[in-house]
Amino acid sequence: MASRLSDDPTRDPAGDALAARFRAVRRLTLDLTAPLSDADATVQSMPDASPAKWHLAHTTWFFETFVLRDHVGGYVPYDPRFAFLFNSYYEAEGRRHARDRRGMITRPSLDEVRGYRAHVDAALSAALPDLPEAACALVELGCHHEEQHQELLVTDLIHLFAQNPLEPALFAPERARPVQAAAPLGWIQQPGGIVRIGHDGTGFAFDCEGPRHDALLHPHAIADRTVTNGEWAAFIADGGYREPRWWLADGWAWVKAEGITAPLYWEEGEGGWTRFGLDGRRAVDPAAPVTHVSFFEADAYAAWAGARLPTEAEWEALAADADTADGNLLDRAGAVAPRPGGGLFGDVWEWTGSAYRPYPGFHAAEGAVGEYNGKFMSGQFVLRGGSCATPRGHARASYRNFFYPHQRWQFTGVRLAKDA
Amino acid sequence: MASRLSDDPTRDPAGDALAARFRAVRRLTLDLTAPLSDADATVQSMPDASPAKWHLAHTTWFFETFVLRDHVGGYVPYDPRFAFLFNSYYEAEGRRHARDRRGMITRPSLDEVRGYRAHVDAALSAALPDLPEAACALVELGCHHEEQHQELLVTDLIHLFAQNPLEPALFAPERARPVQAAAPLGWIQQPGGIVRIGHDGTGFAFDCEGPRHDALLHPHAIADRTVTNGEWAAFIADGGYREPRWWLADGWAWVKAEGITAPLYWEEGEGGWTRFGLDGRRAVDPAAPVTHVSFFEADAYAAWAGARLPTEAEWEALAADADTADGNLLDRAGAVAPRPGGGLFGDVWEWTGSAYRPYPGFHAAEGAVGEYNGKFMSGQFVLRGGSCATPRGHARASYRNFFYPHQRWQFTGVRLAKDA
Amino acid sequence: MASRLSDDPTRDPAGDALAARFRAVRRLTLDLTAPLSDADATVQSMPDASPAKWHLAHTTWFFETFVLRDHVGGYVPYDPRFAFLFNSYYEAEGRRHARDRRGMITRPSLDEVRGYRAHVDAALSAALPDLPEAACALVELGCHHEEQHQELLVTDLIHLFAQNPLEPALFAPERARPVQAAAPLGWIQQPGGIVRIGHDGTGFAFDCEGPRHDALLHPHAIADRTVTNGEWAAFIADGGYREPRWWLADGWAWVKAEGITAPLYWEEGEGGWTRFGLDGRRAVDPAAPVTHVSFFEADAYAAWAGARLPTEAEWEALAADADTADGNLLDRAGAVAPRPGGGLFGDVWEWTGSAYRPYPGFHAAEGAVGEYNGKFMSGQFVLRGGSCATPRGHARASYRNFFYPHQRWQFTGVRLAKDA
Amino acid sequence: MASRLSDDPTRDPAGDALAARFRAVRRLTLDLTAPLSDADATVQSMPDASPAKWHLAHTTWFFETFVLRDHVGGYVPYDPRFAFLFNSYYEAEGRRHARDRRGMITRPSLDEVRGYRAHVDAALSAALPDLPEAACALVELGCHHEEQHQELLVTDLIHLFAQNPLEPALFAPERARPVQAAAPLGWIQQPGGIVRIGHDGTGFAFDCEGPRHDALLHPHAIADRTVTNGEWAAFIADGGYREPRWWLADGWAWVKAEGITAPLYWEEGEGGWTRFGLDGRRAVDPAAPVTHVSFFEADAYAAWAGARLPTEAEWEALAADADTADGNLLDRAGAVAPRPGGGLFGDVWEWTGSAYRPYPGFHAAEGAVGEYNGKFMSGQFVLRGGSCATPRGHARASYRNFFYPHQRWQFTGVRLAKDA
Repeated sequence: MASRLSDDPTRDPAGDALAARFRAVRRLTLDLTAPLSDADATVQSMPDASPAKWHLAHTTWFFETFVLRDHVGGYVPYDPRFAFLFNSYYEAEGRRHARDRRGMITRPSLDEVRGYRAHVDAALSAALPDLPEAACALVELGCHHEEQHQELLVTDLIHLFAQNPLEPALFAPERARPVQAAAPLGWIQQPGGIVRIGHDGTGFAFDCEGPRHDALLHPHAIADRTVTNGEWAAFIADGGYREPRWWLADGWAWVKAEGITAPLYWEEGEGGWTRFGLDGRRAVDPAAPVTHVSFFEADAYAAWAGARLPTEAEWEALAADADTADGNLLDRAGAVAPRPGGGLFGDVWEWTGSAYRPYPGFHAAEGAVGEYNGKFMSGQFVLRGGSCATPRGHARASYRNFFYPHQRWQFTGVRLAKDA
Repeated sequence: MASRLSDDPTRDPAGDALAARFRAVRRLTLDLTAPLSDADATVQSMPDASPAKWHLAHTTWFFETFVLRDHVGGYVPYDPRFAFLFNSYYEAEGRRHARDRRGMITRPSLDEVRGYRAHVDAALSAALPDLPEAACALVELGCHHEEQHQELLVTDLIHLFAQNPLEPALFAPERARPVQAAAPLGWIQQPGGIVRIGHDGTGFAFDCEGPRHDALLHPHAIADRTVTNGEWAAFIADGGYREPRWWLADGWAWVKAEGITAPLYWEEGEGGWTRFGLDGRRAVDPAAPVTHVSFFEADAYAAWAGARLPTEAEWEALAADADTADGNLLDRAGAVAPRPGGGLFGDVWEWTGSAYRPYPGFHAAEGAVGEYNGKFMSGQFVLRGGSCATPRGHARASYRNFFYPHQRWQFTGVRLAKDA
Repeated sequence: MASRLSDDPTRDPAGDALAARFRAVRRLTLDLTAPLSDADATVQSMPDASPAKWHLAHTTWFFETFVLRDHVGGYVPYDPRFAFLFNSYYEAEGRRHARDRRGMITRPSLDEVRGYRAHVDAALSAALPDLPEAACALVELGCHHEEQHQELLVTDLIHLFAQNPLEPALFAPERARPVQAAAPLGWIQQPGGIVRIGHDGTGFAFDCEGPRHDALLHPHAIADRTVTNGEWAAFIADGGYREPRWWLADGWAWVKAEGITAPLYWEEGEGGWTRFGLDGRRAVDPAAPVTHVSFFEADAYAAWAGARLPTEAEWEALAADADTADGNLLDRAGAVAPRPGGGLFGDVWEWTGSAYRPYPGFHAAEGAVGEYNGKFMSGQFVLRGGSCATPRGHARASYRNFFYPHQRWQFTGVRLAKDA
Repeated sequence: MASRLSDDPTRDPAGDALAARFRAVRRLTLDLTAPLSDADATVQSMPDASPAKWHLAHTTWFFETFVLRDHVGGYVPYDPRFAFLFNSYYEAEGRRHARDRRGMITRPSLDEVRGYRAHVDAALSAALPDLPEAACALVELGCHHEEQHQELLVTDLIHLFAQNPLEPALFAPERARPVQAAAPLGWIQQPGGIVRIGHDGTGFAFDCEGPRHDALLHPHAIADRTVTNGEWAAFIADGGYREPRWWLADGWAWVKAEGITAPLYWEEGEGGWTRFGLDGRRAVDPAAPVTHVSFFEADAYAAWAGARLPTEAEWEALAADADTADGNLLDRAGAVAPRPGGGLFGDVWEWTGSAYRPYPGFHAAEGAVGEYNGKFMSGQFVLRGGSCATPRGHARASYRNFFYPHQRWQFTGVRLAKDA
């Protein structure tokens, strides 16, 4: 994982801010997993997902390996076997347990993994004041890395609990808000021209967010909100999932092979559509942004609506001045869910029409942490904006999330665009 | 599941013996699972295996459904959702959770399932004195059913723990016995002729063990002990797994597709062969019976050794007078394993050359409990004798165990035979 | 392929009879393939089937290899590359083209393969008068081998033509016979006791047909004819394919996975059921024996009918005195099909309830031709009697045909039996 | 298939030029298939490929359906069943034969398909003088459509013949040229800035080539020739296929799953590397462009070489003034192959780093012919330039070819680029 760290002259030399951030990030992970039983934390519901225990341990292994092992003299690994169990895909770090067998590791237990976390947290907190700059950068990288896993943790848990016919709720439902209708969709006109996109070097970013560069926009309009559940139900009612002309060929093949008829976790009953989430099965809110749709579905919906998906440059140009403080992002553990009326940040990741490919001038970073982003640059599409499960500190205008076009267990949604 | 119950006039009318048996069987299941964590009890390591929690609950569901629900007025199911979760394959009992998704049920927890067991145990113990004869027969059937699941529980757990790179031990190793060499293999001559096989109606049996009938034996010789690990190592060393001529065509295809080179759980290291078991990874004992071999391997070994597998009638004729008291069978929880020097019962199930098919005059029993054995009568081979994981009360000369020819996660071994 | 040749003292020393048989067998293969285009003869419709060209060449390779190469001094192979292309599964004969890629061999052409046949026929005919006894036995074996392939040729071609949406007919339909109703099913009572089964050493047989041995029959009744299409239609109409209780577990899984609702090649239209065959698509004749059903279907039908399948010993005991001259077997090329009113031989192969396993005292023959039968003795069921596509000289009471329980592209049917 | 036809005022009103073009295109297809047997033309070697007979018939069906049926009064389809057999993917045209079953159609024969071609050619030639403008545009579209299929025809045949262990040659080898070494690789510097790309409306183009639009280039250098076989052999010798760091994650998974170690059709023998082609198996020419490499391989090679693939805009800007007349493109049937020393057009399609996505302002055309390009715009990468199997009239600077990143049975190669 390669980062683009700021050269921020105001950075606290004693690392107090970093220490506070480290503690806060580590704390949130524990809070998110607080309601879990040992079994909840161990099972893997599909190869794309990982057990909660694995997320807890892997993020810890990251700090232990790249900070403590590499930068703290005399540090002895907590358990030398954990490197094999909890490495993810860092080929340079040697052999590792097969990804689709992560759910076989019933031991160490959840409590033991929490013990591992506590040990590494203590060691790292003790070492932090004396860490060299490069190691501090890795601590910051590790925090961002853990924030990524926090989001996966949440969505992997939803997927796991959805496999249980009892459909347990992980958190109590949020307090009900007054029902409101979605605002009519408005269009924001954009004249086109050259814009600067990509990370500007202020603050943290992953390597794939840069270099900052010129991009050429063509005149277009972009929707002022995301597509709602109510609009999606109209697409379904109009036969959207049965009509090949709206679909990419690969998407249509996917619809037929998997028997797709609605967003993931939706079920139709006598009382209408319901969805499953952190608070169990609930009625679909027609005013809230649709979520758990794949790129294929997003693209088909756009075709049906006479529109298209925005490019990532169009999205980023629009978001340049937006503030993550306004977004429905993840601040604390609970039954987070997309809410009506959100902005560019939070609620749902927005599929763009851009394939995930390197920016002009991109080079992968060297070494094990450099394996991260570059090697995934085929077959995936970029999503922008962050979701209700994205830690607030992790969202920014330049952030490039990416998934395969059939994947939809993240909080993924749709914003429309049109050629002007 | 259909049984052939005895019409035993000496049966205790008050059901004391049955109550004692019921308690003992239920106790052993708890003992076998006592070392398990919630996670250990939840994960499913392959579609052929089930989670320990599922075994615990399913055996309980059997008593609750076929005894309490059907024969105890006013009994209210502990949790009406459990019928869906913990039915196995009784089509007549309605829809059920998919077999290969049993590992997704992280809730109810192990403790909750133990609570379910306690509730049903109490209800059944209370009801037992007043149960009609037919219900008592179902209690006895349920005990045998649970004994079957005890064996699967043990072998499923070994399989699960073997998937963990840490290879945890479930139980402490048994006390080491003095090393002894295996006795030379001897042959028992059998003249052939008509013998009676099948269950004789004394005591419990599954439906497929009868009717008792004449079978015609041809003159043959049968080995006086099973094949040992040491002999199997010689087969490996002689290239047995690389030479197609010893193998059935389906077996050779399996060897090549799966990359089979040794019994399941064997690994070759600097110190020679090791195997994994309830006590973790240990050196292979050359004098002990080989186990965790498939029918394909057993058949290939026999061809290499210039012999064949016995038919089930040959085996049963030999075992007619053998006593299960002498066998290395399951009496209590612990790191049971095949031991040198065993007899016909216990240690390892012995593959026969007989396909699992109905006996002359066999008819499947009516109703849901009758679904049991008859419907599996294609594609599988019969094993005889019981293993170190078979509850002692569950072994008998007429018992017909059956598995597909590639399966080998049970304690399965080989006894040779020859045409005279 | 191992044979049990007779030591027939009346055998013509000059081999005239053998020569005549050789010519007749070779002629029939050409007649069966006479209507084929080069393309018809080349395509492989599924891994279980082989292209006609492959059958034509492989049977020729058999004579060339085991007779001409091994027994005729100075014989030069027609094309040394053909051994790789046209060996089937004789591991001892070296590497060979993958079975499921046989349809890729567009060259040599059908005409070139016919040229290969003519060359080998001429060489073998020239050599025949001087061949030693052992080689003559191999010629006879080769004729039986080719007869096996004639039947596969016919059924593989039906399967291929059925894949073509145009459903071409390979031969003109046979002259229509007056429509007749099937006779009511009668039952033949059999008292049980010891019978001799297996080949008696007179004439040719494959190795798996012996040794002749005692078998013990139990009292039973066996149907005096096979199940008809009309009866099968009643099974369908009664929901036979939708009711799990009639099916073996493996059979029910197959029905659901493959969407099976009727015999292979049946389609339901406005005018009722039709079937595809050598004469194209035609109406199903309700009085004719049902065919193209799997063992799973046969077993389910028997369960529905309150009966069972006969064992192979029961069948052979019944057939001991039957004459193949009366059967609807293959005498010449044409649109052969099962006909109403047949006997034990011909029309359809009859599934037995016996797994295909070795007879007491069976040993596989040595060497390459010995690979044949023994290695298939797992997972398959025995069929008896021969079909309308079985060459008449190839049918006999002791013949053990075998297929996997899901296979049904042969002319396979059902005769019922019952315990007395 | 949607086209962007020119409004060329000089177009011959009598359609003589169009008639000549139609005849020439149809003639070349026949020439390319002239050496084929009926079997050669029928077999399908993989789901991605189609039988030659299918290409011959499908291109004919296109003219028959969209021109004769839709624009010529009273035209009666040659055979109404062909629409089902030979439609490709036009959902609007109704049901069609499954793509991966095209090789099952042994009838109609190759000769019959040639008869179908002759019939449609005659009808269309007769109708051509009186066709309305819209129909003439469809004839031109049909010619381009057929040119696409000519290239597939060639590459599908190579793939088919490569499956035959005899590795037949389809055409005689081209006359050997004097061996020459490849010129050293040079780099062309490009300053960046806005360029116009996309089809300019002069002459024919597919819909995905437009609209013409501004694209922003960043400063870069692009190689003055494609990568040679000799350079590729050095990549192999350096362990390029065994080193994960050069590969995209999806590419590395593909390498391991498929056991990829060299370009398709390469084999290593005692005399070095050979490759299979239209002229059979021959030595690899180290000076010729490497071909039959996937995007994954191209990308890995570029990483190993310290470079990257060009974007399609970079490629098109470079090619704006290049002339197809200089390229090694397809002019007549024969053993065409990439040759040393070629330019931007011909020899090999050049993988770009651009995912195949719509240009700004792109809209799919309406109706059945509009299904063509837009629906493939996910998961594929753009290739530019044309190959030795691309008809000369079919190559142009704006042409966007596209394949999945693992596909390599086309003549695909690599041109390197670098950030400046």
